[in-house]
Amino acid sequence: MPESRRTLWGARTGVPLSQSVLEYTRSVDVDLRLLPDDVDASLAHAAMLQRAGLISADDQRAIASGLQRLRSEYEKGELVVAAGDEDVHSVVERRLHELVGEPALRLHSGRSRNDQVATDLRLYARRRGRQVLGAIAELQDVLRARGEQHARSVMPGYTHLQRAQPVSLRRHLGAYVEMLERDAGRISDALRRADVLPLGSAALAGSTLPLDPGFVAEQLGFAATSRNPMDAVSDRDFAAEIVFSCALLMVHCSRLCEDMVLWCSSEFSFMSFDNAHATGSSLMPQKKNPDVAELARGRSARVIGDVVSLLTMLKGLPLAYDRDLQEDKRPLYDGLDTAQETLVILTEVLRAARFDTERMRAAASDPALLATDVAEALVRRGVAFRQAHEIVATMVRRSSAEGRSLAEVRAAEWDEVSPGSGAELVALFDVDAALARREADVS
Amino acid sequence: MPESRRTLWGARTGVPLSQSVLEYTRSVDVDLRLLPDDVDASLAHAAMLQRAGLISADDQRAIASGLQRLRSEYEKGELVVAAGDEDVHSVVERRLHELVGEPALRLHSGRSRNDQVATDLRLYARRRGRQVLGAIAELQDVLRARGEQHARSVMPGYTHLQRAQPVSLRRHLGAYVEMLERDAGRISDALRRADVLPLGSAALAGSTLPLDPGFVAEQLGFAATSRNPMDAVSDRDFAAEIVFSCALLMVHCSRLCEDMVLWCSSEFSFMSFDNAHATGSSLMPQKKNPDVAELARGRSARVIGDVVSLLTMLKGLPLAYDRDLQEDKRPLYDGLDTAQETLVILTEVLRAARFDTERMRAAASDPALLATDVAEALVRRGVAFRQAHEIVATMVRRSSAEGRSLAEVRAAEWDEVSPGSGAELVALFDVDAALARREADVS
Amino acid sequence: MPESRRTLWGARTGVPLSQSVLEYTRSVDVDLRLLPDDVDASLAHAAMLQRAGLISADDQRAIASGLQRLRSEYEKGELVVAAGDEDVHSVVERRLHELVGEPALRLHSGRSRNDQVATDLRLYARRRGRQVLGAIAELQDVLRARGEQHARSVMPGYTHLQRAQPVSLRRHLGAYVEMLERDAGRISDALRRADVLPLGSAALAGSTLPLDPGFVAEQLGFAATSRNPMDAVSDRDFAAEIVFSCALLMVHCSRLCEDMVLWCSSEFSFMSFDNAHATGSSLMPQKKNPDVAELARGRSARVIGDVVSLLTMLKGLPLAYDRDLQEDKRPLYDGLDTAQETLVILTEVLRAARFDTERMRAAASDPALLATDVAEALVRRGVAFRQAHEIVATMVRRSSAEGRSLAEVRAAEWDEVSPGSGAELVALFDVDAALARREADVS
Amino acid sequence: MPESRRTLWGARTGVPLSQSVLEYTRSVDVDLRLLPDDVDASLAHAAMLQRAGLISADDQRAIASGLQRLRSEYEKGELVVAAGDEDVHSVVERRLHELVGEPALRLHSGRSRNDQVATDLRLYARRRGRQVLGAIAELQDVLRARGEQHARSVMPGYTHLQRAQPVSLRRHLGAYVEMLERDAGRISDALRRADVLPLGSAALAGSTLPLDPGFVAEQLGFAATSRNPMDAVSDRDFAAEIVFSCALLMVHCSRLCEDMVLWCSSEFSFMSFDNAHATGSSLMPQKKNPDVAELARGRSARVIGDVVSLLTMLKGLPLAYDRDLQEDKRPLYDGLDTAQETLVILTEVLRAARFDTERMRAAASDPALLATDVAEALVRRGVAFRQAHEIVATMVRRSSAEGRSLAEVRAAEWDEVSPGSGAELVALFDVDAALARREADVS
Repeated sequence: MPESRRTLWGARTGVPLSQSVLEYTRSVDVDLRLLPDDVDASLAHAAMLQRAGLISADDQRAIASGLQRLRSEYEKGELVVAAGDEDVHSVVERRLHELVGEPALRLHSGRSRNDQVATDLRLYARRRGRQVLGAIAELQDVLRARGEQHARSVMPGYTHLQRAQPVSLRRHLGAYVEMLERDAGRISDALRRADVLPLGSAALAGSTLPLDPGFVAEQLGFAATSRNPMDAVSDRDFAAEIVFSCALLMVHCSRLCEDMVLWCSSEFSFMSFDNAHATGSSLMPQKKNPDVAELARGRSARVIGDVVSLLTMLKGLPLAYDRDLQEDKRPLYDGLDTAQETLVILTEVLRAARFDTERMRAAASDPALLATDVAEALVRRGVAFRQAHEIVATMVRRSSAEGRSLAEVRAAEWDEVSPGSGAELVALFDVDAALARREADVS
Repeated sequence: MPESRRTLWGARTGVPLSQSVLEYTRSVDVDLRLLPDDVDASLAHAAMLQRAGLISADDQRAIASGLQRLRSEYEKGELVVAAGDEDVHSVVERRLHELVGEPALRLHSGRSRNDQVATDLRLYARRRGRQVLGAIAELQDVLRARGEQHARSVMPGYTHLQRAQPVSLRRHLGAYVEMLERDAGRISDALRRADVLPLGSAALAGSTLPLDPGFVAEQLGFAATSRNPMDAVSDRDFAAEIVFSCALLMVHCSRLCEDMVLWCSSEFSFMSFDNAHATGSSLMPQKKNPDVAELARGRSARVIGDVVSLLTMLKGLPLAYDRDLQEDKRPLYDGLDTAQETLVILTEVLRAARFDTERMRAAASDPALLATDVAEALVRRGVAFRQAHEIVATMVRRSSAEGRSLAEVRAAEWDEVSPGSGAELVALFDVDAALARREADVS
Repeated sequence: MPESRRTLWGARTGVPLSQSVLEYTRSVDVDLRLLPDDVDASLAHAAMLQRAGLISADDQRAIASGLQRLRSEYEKGELVVAAGDEDVHSVVERRLHELVGEPALRLHSGRSRNDQVATDLRLYARRRGRQVLGAIAELQDVLRARGEQHARSVMPGYTHLQRAQPVSLRRHLGAYVEMLERDAGRISDALRRADVLPLGSAALAGSTLPLDPGFVAEQLGFAATSRNPMDAVSDRDFAAEIVFSCALLMVHCSRLCEDMVLWCSSEFSFMSFDNAHATGSSLMPQKKNPDVAELARGRSARVIGDVVSLLTMLKGLPLAYDRDLQEDKRPLYDGLDTAQETLVILTEVLRAARFDTERMRAAASDPALLATDVAEALVRRGVAFRQAHEIVATMVRRSSAEGRSLAEVRAAEWDEVSPGSGAELVALFDVDAALARREADVS
Repeated sequence: MPESRRTLWGARTGVPLSQSVLEYTRSVDVDLRLLPDDVDASLAHAAMLQRAGLISADDQRAIASGLQRLRSEYEKGELVVAAGDEDVHSVVERRLHELVGEPALRLHSGRSRNDQVATDLRLYARRRGRQVLGAIAELQDVLRARGEQHARSVMPGYTHLQRAQPVSLRRHLGAYVEMLERDAGRISDALRRADVLPLGSAALAGSTLPLDPGFVAEQLGFAATSRNPMDAVSDRDFAAEIVFSCALLMVHCSRLCEDMVLWCSSEFSFMSFDNAHATGSSLMPQKKNPDVAELARGRSARVIGDVVSLLTMLKGLPLAYDRDLQEDKRPLYDGLDTAQETLVILTEVLRAARFDTERMRAAASDPALLATDVAEALVRRGVAFRQAHEIVATMVRRSSAEGRSLAEVRAAEWDEVSPGSGAELVALFDVDAALARREADVS
């Protein structure tokens, strides 16, 4: 059998695997990224095997030093994938054998690639998930800091993309702080739920060897060991939950980016990117484009697709492990990568962006934005809200037909429709006061 | 203006809304289901308005009694939706006005439909989510109870739908108990994160009236009030998170159903549905079909589609409220309904299903399923695992070529490849002992 | 057995179907909409049975007159669904039996509900698909007509939502005519591919009776009969293809609506909805919102979810018919309904919308939009494009730093960087001429 | 400015692009795959520029020879991507400049990266789409050839995974031939609709230079030029349509694989993979797994996710080009790659697979599968179908209760319920005759 087609299981059939089947089934291009996690898990597994008397102390030492060296080769970019390596586990076992000889053949005792990859993937999800949590906190910090600078920068709050009521830029940015807080909560919950060690479940039914999963869990920092091996080898809930959390996080980033794209338009002109952050056109010499925001928006769509890929892949698989599960990695990587990269770049862009507070203030000074303030003043004077709404709406319509703004309605006219209210109502039309009425205690 | 086109905001334009626009935009068919929640929220809001001195005690009493009557009409199926009612809020305000007159016009003070519907939807999600949690617990109970009956019923555990190793039916069913436990955890986390009151955020910027959201939250049993009104009116994270949780729950149900469809086939014959739970064919007189399981599988696809609808709808909306958000309801309803109905029916079906333990045992008695036990016995004797694997795989190949099962390999033959092991190895081929080696402490 | 639990196949088990299973599996709420199609298919089937000598001419006449009456009852809203009716086929067979007695029992010869519902659904898709094609043509007509009115209305064309170059409103609207043309092509292709009769395939293997599917196809206007019965009963490609086509159509509508929402904002003010088409706010008296456009955008997300539901449901079903397929109807209905309703409402809204051509022209008159014209003029003078781009970009930067627009750059300044070009370049800054340079032959 | 940050548009801002923004926005890793298409399009564009008198014949020759050399470098793997290259277009322009000097600066006249990438992507889709069509035809050939070998191999046809009626393996495999035929039709339709040249649209508004898109279209083999430039640069319908077609194709492959996974199970044992095509277990020495089929099933989920990514990305983009569109490539590549690789591997696996016709025949010989034949024989004798169905169903129930198969019901018993039918009915129970009754003219 050509060495390049020798697999971890080849003795069963005695014939080499077809080259095209090897190419269709091999996952090493995708799962090599798990090598540090595979090494960590193997170190803990070997330590356990030694404690359980299944391998000697010498063997364990050889395995441990070989694994450390292998990791170092990987980190230096020196690890070579052989033509016949099916996956990261094959790479590790083959290279370890080259490095330490016979002890390498003892490492796979009591485990299967099924529980091994499930363990690797949880370790990976944990370290990457924590990085995303850090990146969330940094974006929140910038949003809060920019908000504090602009607690008094008044701008129109929009509903239906129509100017609605005055808000501060602090409040607008603060909405994203809240969204990100929930995102962090979701990812933390997912990591907590993922904090269970599958190793020891073997292929699906546990092992007949005297393993000690509790020891391995402790070594790897897992809070618990799995209760049911059939579940453990086929559970990818943690991947689906993390990718969903990343998708919703990206949806929030996409909303922020939609705001930024609008604000960067000539029509809004509320914001401009730092020149080092905006891109230009290969054709039109005058262009300054907020591409980062558009790409973040576009990439959110990709992560939504990742959620679908994962859920659809899982749906309808019979117990326990099926090879379909190999398709778990790309969506998980993509969700975590996209989330992290997007958080980092938005943090950088927002830190340096310039807000045009004059344009914002001018836009917020449209008196129509205070129509609700007038209606609520009438309510405080005892008018039923629905009547107050109608009074103001009628006045909006009338003044607009006459080419006057609501601020230009005279006290006497208000007195006509709501006797005695005129003086109070005409005094409402100050946008800073309107802001103060709402945001004394802004978050 | 024809009464049927009179809206809550009609005074602004002075012209009736086009009939076709009303039809395209109205949501009452979909959101009427929120009426009990709208009434609850309105009762609390009215109580708060009275405490804040914004409406009189008489008005509050009138409003409260009107709302109670309205709810009762709804529950009896007597509430009539008028041609011009846009949504559940219009229905309530119109009918309340008919019932109690002028005080009804005071109820909308300090709130907008934006914060109102966000509140209603959270109340709805909470009560329906709790029902789903109850239904999960019941299905877990049945899975556990049927498992206890079958702790010694041995069957093949499968990987790649190939017989792999013997497991108990208890362990197989127990895997689903674990999945459901995580589902319950996810839904609980989502409900906890949703436990925030949006009312008081008004359209997007809060109100200039002296409202007391904390009081309303207490009345309605919310743990907190929202910190940012722009976020509060546009946040549908809770819906997305609940629907995702339902989708993953349905994926688990779909996996269970895939198992059941297999088990009900003539080829497996591990299980049969109670006659009252199986359906037949309009053409083929002999058929007995597990339609319930197939439908559950098919409906899981629908809920995955619901996740996409929600995330895609939210992606890229600028702050704050946009009407796109109206499309939040159908996926939320569908996710919760489908999850609950599926859990209930699977509980009923599984409770009554018959397991054919003889067929299971016969299938599990294939000696090939104990190949791993042999390899692990060799490991215990000091053979390196990879060599043990090769020894057994070679023996599988050889005996199979000779038309013998692995159990028919003689002690002398084993001794040849692993001196002294023969007696121990031939003794391994007892399926009950094999089960006991693994499931002494089955979950 | 209670009459309400009597099914088309009940004799097999002799026990009634559980009430909850009936509720979980019944589809009559969803598929009753297919009744006209079920009647059409049954009329053709009965005619064929008579020609084949399988039923008498008297029986056929009775069946035909009963079916006509049943359809008339349905159209008048008088048809009552009985508690035990599983689906539209049960309704028709039960009611037909009530109306005409024994001959009704002969109608199901040589067919199964599997091929019957596949036929009904294709008939439904055909009639609804044709309606959508009609609605596409009407929206195209309005887009073309409004475009012709505005062939000289210049506005900024945008890339990255930044003003890029001047275009006519005709050209902007014309882009949607093109998209819709492709949508119509896709739906037509899907209908053509769906134009195959499944009836005659029976449950999955054809019938042993001497049926004549060709005759039925002719009666029902199908171009062909299916070649493989196992495929015929389980093929839902046509549904997936139509729903996908509707989803992409809705994506186009969503893009148009995104433009309209922008144009209706105060910042753009390029467009306003007719008052009869805009909605207001229950709280803010001044609001005029383009809700129709937002809802269309939101509903496009729903149809994308429908595509997922269908594909995910189909994925991995073994041959031939599985009950999962019942979940084909809701996405198909929803895709077609949403597409048609959205096309109709956008046609109405666009027909009456007002364009503010002065605002558009003012926005398009930003001289920066002609930077490319300058670069291309330089190219015509022999400057390499990349150098021309750099020359103009540098001039944009320099003039902008000095607070001058590109139109204010003097001929002498241009001459400095491109000797002799000054007179030609300063003459370029006329937006109508710029439009004419591009749109002499606008589509 | 560091050379590594020099972009095609840098002169506008005069500052280098931030390194992290460059990394977030650059697409060269993804779009380098389009290099052959970019070269083809550039060759045709240069030829057109020369004909239009916009570049000299010498320049064109230099450009053409430089592009040919560049393509050759790419094919040999010698083309180096520089640190500052944003995308494939930057690579080509930079390298061309290195190779031929000044003429390279003239190539971008009259085009933008917007119309350029749209053109490249259509060329790519066309060449890859045609490969997929070829791979479909090969899989159909194998399905037909294996079917012809097994026109008389009887097996159970299943509905609800319950044995329903006898079919031939030819018919079962033939169902997939039909599905693939529709897939080919969809891809062909998509390619036809994509056969329109966008080049000449420039950024979004066409060019002021005297271009000749018709000539370019002819050179590149496009059937037409685009009618509207704003549509042309932002249209990704062809990508969505092709990816959807690949997704539905993968759904069909997934169904075929579901059948194969079932058939390879011990319970069915209808099929076995060639040893060179099956994989084993790293733990369990006896396993032979149909991983290829499982992976194809799992990858179909990925392509469904790709459809979502594309549609969701496109939804709601305002006209014309937005950078979000850059996210079009990965789903398009993935859809086409996955489809092609899966078709190829299934062709190889099916060509060599072994069918166990004895097991199939045994399974099909269950007399219950002929229940419909009995009912239809009764219909031919004049019994109403519904009564015939009931008669047979009752007999199934009765004989089954007595432990007898339907074939063991005696003629006299049938005569009792349908006088005179007994002899005919008992003669029906021959599975080959049953097959012949249905498949005389099998497709």
